Amino acid sequence: MPRDPRYDILFQPVQIGPKTARNRFFQVPHASGMTNAAPHVRAAFRETKAEGGWAVVSTGACSVHPSSDDSPFPCATLWDTADVRAHALMTEAAHRHGALAAVELWHGGAVTVNRTTRHAPLSPSGVAWMPGHPGFMSSARPKVMDAGDIRDLIRWHAEAAVRAEQAGFDILYVYSGMGYLPHQFLLSETNRRTDAYGGSVRNRVRLTEELIDAVREATGGRCAVALRISLQELRAKLSDVAPSEAHEVISLLRDAPDLFDVKMDTSASDCAASRYTPEGSHEPVVDFVKSLTDKPVVGVGRFTSPDTMVSMIRRGVLDLIGGARPSIADPFLPRKIEEGRVEDIRECIGCNLCISSWHDGVWVRCTQNPTAGEEWRRGWHPEVLRKDGTGRVLVVGGGPAGLEAALTLARRGHEVALADRARDFGGRLRWESALPGLNQWFRVVDYRLGQLRKLPNVALYPESDLSAADVRDFGADHVVVATGARWLPHLLGAGELPTGPLLAPRVYTPQDIAAGVLPEGPVAVFDYDSYYLGSAIAEHLALKGLAVTYVTPAGAAAGWGIMTNEQPLVHQSFAAKGIALRTLERVTGFDGAELRLAQVFSGEERRIEARSVVIVGARESGSALFEALREDMPPDRLHLTGDALAPGAIVHAVYSGHRTARELGGQAALPRRDAPFAPPGLEAAE
Amino acid sequence: MPRDPRYDILFQPVQIGPKTARNRFFQVPHASGMTNAAPHVRAAFRETKAEGGWAVVSTGACSVHPSSDDSPFPCATLWDTADVRAHALMTEAAHRHGALAAVELWHGGAVTVNRTTRHAPLSPSGVAWMPGHPGFMSSARPKVMDAGDIRDLIRWHAEAAVRAEQAGFDILYVYSGMGYLPHQFLLSETNRRTDAYGGSVRNRVRLTEELIDAVREATGGRCAVALRISLQELRAKLSDVAPSEAHEVISLLRDAPDLFDVKMDTSASDCAASRYTPEGSHEPVVDFVKSLTDKPVVGVGRFTSPDTMVSMIRRGVLDLIGGARPSIADPFLPRKIEEGRVEDIRECIGCNLCISSWHDGVWVRCTQNPTAGEEWRRGWHPEVLRKDGTGRVLVVGGGPAGLEAALTLARRGHEVALADRARDFGGRLRWESALPGLNQWFRVVDYRLGQLRKLPNVALYPESDLSAADVRDFGADHVVVATGARWLPHLLGAGELPTGPLLAPRVYTPQDIAAGVLPEGPVAVFDYDSYYLGSAIAEHLALKGLAVTYVTPAGAAAGWGIMTNEQPLVHQSFAAKGIALRTLERVTGFDGAELRLAQVFSGEERRIEARSVVIVGARESGSALFEALREDMPPDRLHLTGDALAPGAIVHAVYSGHRTARELGGQAALPRRDAPFAPPGLEAAE
Repeated sequence: MPRDPRYDILFQPVQIGPKTARNRFFQVPHASGMTNAAPHVRAAFRETKAEGGWAVVSTGACSVHPSSDDSPFPCATLWDTADVRAHALMTEAAHRHGALAAVELWHGGAVTVNRTTRHAPLSPSGVAWMPGHPGFMSSARPKVMDAGDIRDLIRWHAEAAVRAEQAGFDILYVYSGMGYLPHQFLLSETNRRTDAYGGSVRNRVRLTEELIDAVREATGGRCAVALRISLQELRAKLSDVAPSEAHEVISLLRDAPDLFDVKMDTSASDCAASRYTPEGSHEPVVDFVKSLTDKPVVGVGRFTSPDTMVSMIRRGVLDLIGGARPSIADPFLPRKIEEGRVEDIRECIGCNLCISSWHDGVWVRCTQNPTAGEEWRRGWHPEVLRKDGTGRVLVVGGGPAGLEAALTLARRGHEVALADRARDFGGRLRWESALPGLNQWFRVVDYRLGQLRKLPNVALYPESDLSAADVRDFGADHVVVATGARWLPHLLGAGELPTGPLLAPRVYTPQDIAAGVLPEGPVAVFDYDSYYLGSAIAEHLALKGLAVTYVTPAGAAAGWGIMTNEQPLVHQSFAAKGIALRTLERVTGFDGAELRLAQVFSGEERRIEARSVVIVGARESGSALFEALREDMPPDRLHLTGDALAPGAIVHAVYSGHRTARELGGQAALPRRDAPFAPPGLEAAE
Repeated sequence: MPRDPRYDILFQPVQIGPKTARNRFFQVPHASGMTNAAPHVRAAFRETKAEGGWAVVSTGACSVHPSSDDSPFPCATLWDTADVRAHALMTEAAHRHGALAAVELWHGGAVTVNRTTRHAPLSPSGVAWMPGHPGFMSSARPKVMDAGDIRDLIRWHAEAAVRAEQAGFDILYVYSGMGYLPHQFLLSETNRRTDAYGGSVRNRVRLTEELIDAVREATGGRCAVALRISLQELRAKLSDVAPSEAHEVISLLRDAPDLFDVKMDTSASDCAASRYTPEGSHEPVVDFVKSLTDKPVVGVGRFTSPDTMVSMIRRGVLDLIGGARPSIADPFLPRKIEEGRVEDIRECIGCNLCISSWHDGVWVRCTQNPTAGEEWRRGWHPEVLRKDGTGRVLVVGGGPAGLEAALTLARRGHEVALADRARDFGGRLRWESALPGLNQWFRVVDYRLGQLRKLPNVALYPESDLSAADVRDFGADHVVVATGARWLPHLLGAGELPTGPLLAPRVYTPQDIAAGVLPEGPVAVFDYDSYYLGSAIAEHLALKGLAVTYVTPAGAAAGWGIMTNEQPLVHQSFAAKGIALRTLERVTGFDGAELRLAQVFSGEERRIEARSVVIVGARESGSALFEALREDMPPDRLHLTGDALAPGAIVHAVYSGHRTARELGGQAALPRRDAPFAPPGLEAAE
């Protein structure tokens, strides 16, 4: 099918200084967690996007010097020539597919407390960066940079630029955003200097300008120089000479870089979870930039709709469509638009598992794309599968794991039957995506069901509650059981381990709420799962008009939600909905009228009034169907997957289903182990 | 000086199965954070202990299979033959000094959620391990192991044992502790199985027994097999046939391993901070083991006193003196006792910065020993320094940084003068170590002052408040300024950044409390430093009889104290002392009678009564003396160090002072970069 001519504009080339991007799809720098320690994994991850049609693929933050060491958060390095080879793998991979390769040169300043290199952190004025923020928390406060430190910083960027060109990069970023060092110079909160680098906006911009010049000079104008800049706080600040400090900054820099990459200030606002933030949320902050410069501008906004993309260009907001999350969820997004296959796009759901991976300090994971990070290690391509399936496979259970298993098996060529006892497919997402803020998560189901319905070798059986005898009668060569897990009404013990059930009237689990139970109020939601579900249920019940108290043993609501950037917004939502919050407490008893609580550390007892309790805590895997079938089915023909194997988030279920489908019917190849290139001379050290 | 004959018993050899430890000093397995990714760094770190007299040096936890992947927490691996070479570096290093090398074979089970390898976590019965605990928090719940999984686990241990022997290890551990997989089988809370591996103690012990047998068989009795076992919870449980389940377990296993390594159950109880827990705290839990077995027993307890060590042996508690933290603080502890130099021991202060490093996911750091982790990278030996100092050096400021700089410079051979304006040396520790629980931290000062006083090339000048003119008149070749940092009465803004001072009556900082100010009560302590000082000041004021409210923007008191295992005990101490706790709030205003607070996420306003406020938040570095001197002193002769350079914890100050002293007068060699050995075949993959 030819593409809609409306989208032709997206495939126009764009000049970026001395380089030309073949279309407007620009995978902006984003963390992969892979670092120079896994150069093959990283190169293959980025290569897949180049193959999928992105005109530019970028690294994540790439440290220019050991004084910018973000450990344990993963980051790439260009500290010396030993680092060149690892990056060259990635640039060669990008060039193979006609993409440009960009590198985000980066110094974290006060953000990076140098836990491994043990340098004193650097900063314009000694202001600690979010000193109480989990993850950044440390006792290492930054040094105030003197004139020599500033000269060093500029030299480090120039030296890193030379190495970046050696590595084959086409576009070199200067990074004045997200609280990192040049951004700390831009902001008056962190820049209290009285020299030529502090005070007026003109002075605060100076460092960024000198970094751009240094990078350009170091590479003799052969590479494009991009500026990545955060504009949120600057735009909120008045200026004497412009509508805001952001306007003044962009005016001063209008001719300096070959490209502006414009963004928000913090991970939580820049990479906002779909639960509380819609697509395109950056526009009100970055919309003015193109009016002040003739250089091309790229920005993001979790864009997955080509119509929205066209609108961003036609309305003069952006020249290039930046993608980070959508490029992880579907590396082939540009090519699918190009080929008129828009309905095949695996749309990002905005769950932010990807950014949680970076917060967790590991390789990127994606709920929608289970192959992300596995391109080299397991040889998984997101679009191309070995077409070796010949048998008949019955998949029982049409939740995220079963849908993914069925689709992957069908793509391998198997005859696939997918059965679910419910009328609609989707499993836990049928109900969960109806909770406040979670509707976009249903894309996990929509995408897979849409693809399955197009395949001739797939039969869908809704409303089919299969017994072991039914399954045996079906006579499939393989049976995949993906029947999910059950929530338990269990308490949490003093040793932080789940114990037995809370035996009392009106004790519910998420299953009961899913089944339509509306508890008597006031209701307490006791959440020791600590991801999204407990807080979403609390919101749901509050919207039903109940008086809700949310109780958690963690220090904040949605404890793990700090990882996905949801946590601050959950608290704001609680405040707006009047949900009472009790942290650092666990439920110890309930008599139907009063809930007994204990402080998790001291054991101090508290009591609150409640008529009912919803416990979002432990889950139980396993399947009676699987246990019945394993009595007479050979183990290599019977497969347990997803939550039924081990309860997890949607991301775990999709991955599990995918892996089951990839490995079914054969011995899985051992995953490959990556390793960095040893610095020259290291072997001689032994 | 010959050693005291009372200590001779510590230097008797001990038979451990087929191997002989040359003395009773046993560096038990402990995390180094170095992993196979930094094999030279790790080998040198462990080698220094072998050189320092430890008869056995051990690895930290060493994963036997990718289903035990603790990322982002660092751990070693023995997954395949590619891992052998990295470990061989360490065993060779240990053997060079006559030490035995031990490896802690390890499977984390439900503790390890396999964020990188993406296997489903394993567990006896699907009980999640501390699912709400920061750091462990994840949505990946464990699979219930079936019979095949148990066979696999045993085989993985046997295969890892073979590789361990190939790598040159003498002692192979089976690890049934700390909530890891075999320990999950021992505990009835996590083992609810109904097969031969669950139910009775006999059944729950079975897996551990089979692992020991498998490891022994795999290595044909050539290696010693050690069992590391946690006994805290087991000892608290009644048994029908013994005084406790712990007694029953040890009785059943009495002849199985060649060595028992006995310990507590959790990081917080096993590696307890000195702030709340004295030396030797394990004894009441592990004291019975020797009465039930003839095999040698090793245990820990932060032992640094040889008299205590002798007592542990004479009283029949232990055969071998285990050391983890004390071996980091002073790798030469055994040799110093052996050589009659007990007063030269650099005693562990129990601050737990070492375990915080693991929680932080990075290489081990130590407050007392700045060379830990730098043995290979920077070539720093803890005892031996290049004797190249010839000049006169004046060190101004006798806190942790100044003391360390002076001592290191003196050891290099410089003529050193150390001046402090106070009557006593120690800087911030003079006062901080007088706060509740912190007295052992004064060892940082005691050790350095004791060593300085023995050196003929050191002159100490207390009560010397030097002006720039005084310093110039002194005429030193080098001046090191280590005058510390100042606490600021600054608030924390909505953007989590420190802002300006709180302008109100009776607003204090730690300096005021140090100077003896007793605030009017009720007093609020606003702590956004979030390490120990805020909570210690709250305790101090409560003990003075004041009504204290502790306010923090973090989710718990001593937010960063989760890293050092202090946090639970801080909360217990607050409850015992009646200190009110307010979390997730920041101070926004104060009128001398009422304190205005805002919820950090929602901004919701609250008010509490207070007559005074102590703010433990931002600090300011810099030195007027340094600024005055730099006007006419050449930069290569004037050095700013410690908190005056960049405010930090004591660990940062000591490290900074040490590095300044190492690098003074010369160009510091670039630190070496380590890299793992690439798996065989990886090069061919390109």
